[in-house]
Amino acid sequence: MDIAFLLYDNMTPLDFIGPYQVLALVPNARIHLVATEAGLVRTDSGMRMYAEKKLEEVSRADILVVPGSKDPSKTMANARVLEWLRAVDASTRWTVSVCTGSLILGAAGLLQGKRATTHWMMLDQLRDFGATPVSERIVFDGKRVASAGVSAGIDMALALVGKEFGVPTAQAIQLAIEYDPEPPFQAGSPRVAPPEVVQAVRAMIEQDVRA
Amino acid sequence: MDIAFLLYDNMTPLDFIGPYQVLALVPNARIHLVATEAGLVRTDSGMRMYAEKKLEEVSRADILVVPGSKDPSKTMANARVLEWLRAVDASTRWTVSVCTGSLILGAAGLLQGKRATTHWMMLDQLRDFGATPVSERIVFDGKRVASAGVSAGIDMALALVGKEFGVPTAQAIQLAIEYDPEPPFQAGSPRVAPPEVVQAVRAMIEQDVRA
Repeated sequence: MDIAFLLYDNMTPLDFIGPYQVLALVPNARIHLVATEAGLVRTDSGMRMYAEKKLEEVSRADILVVPGSKDPSKTMANARVLEWLRAVDASTRWTVSVCTGSLILGAAGLLQGKRATTHWMMLDQLRDFGATPVSERIVFDGKRVASAGVSAGIDMALALVGKEFGVPTAQAIQLAIEYDPEPPFQAGSPRVAPPEVVQAVRAMIEQDVRA
Repeated sequence: MDIAFLLYDNMTPLDFIGPYQVLALVPNARIHLVATEAGLVRTDSGMRMYAEKKLEEVSRADILVVPGSKDPSKTMANARVLEWLRAVDASTRWTVSVCTGSLILGAAGLLQGKRATTHWMMLDQLRDFGATPVSERIVFDGKRVASAGVSAGIDMALALVGKEFGVPTAQAIQLAIEYDPEPPFQAGSPRVAPPEVVQAVRAMIEQDVRA
């Protein structure tokens, strides 16, 4: 079972590490961390991760995971990355995204006619790629799986493990990482957050994307 | 506001990235990633992270975060790390741990007489360091804050941001990372997981620690 993660400059750390922490615990999983070049990748939060392989070293995967970014536009415009995503997708059992990773899959033409989701602020942008935006935390459409913003990748990866490797394996991983969430506040979606918090976050993210 | 994370070989990725993703979004936070030497650190899941500074380059912090590991014993026995933790702790407003990070703080003598928690499988080991084990997801005792296994660091960091920077800031970060968890299974603690899953995870972790 080969599981490939696309890493790239400006990616969001938890978008990658949430599913990685779940999938790395699947028995006999071989993980491949892939970027345009092997070496360090700088995330959108500053810290750096290490990609072991460049794109051309990985030509197939059973599961392909694309994390998001505060601003994925450079990756969405990188023809070499998009070509690689299409080629690997042709071999996968599952092609999955976290947050705005779905916009990258969309730019690669892989979400045409599919239901998908992304970070709540970017949801309408999915239409640009022929996808139908769905405001749910995890959206399965055939072998394509999209999750909502940043932290949703943990839920998505557990659901995926349940489908592919069986529920007891998913439950064991959930228990190993003690994923019994108790958020101290009720503010994780625009449906439940106070309106002034929603406004503040909209302004902050719009500024980040313009910067 | 200076926030220092201890990175070390064999650390668990999500123990670090959960709180990092939350704390890196605090306005004006200066994050310091610190290890025995600057450079790459290999996690217990294989992937590598980059520490920008060696211990001696960071002598104080407002918040100190210590992630856990499947097997933190080497770090618990590293006198240079323990001395650094004691020195930085003397300057902090908050000294926090995720998962078995609390065993490292315990080994540094920083949990004597304190209530604390850790991964559910390691809870009793806190007694070795004069701490009182508490089976809760987040445990505050004065300026020391401990969280349960791996994923609990996200909840802990949001609670900490609420106390230190105000509830609206914590809510904005929660919304930015869309932390509205919907675990697909009920298996995140030994209280709710099926008994056979608890047994399987106990066996798996015991084998990992022996290996």
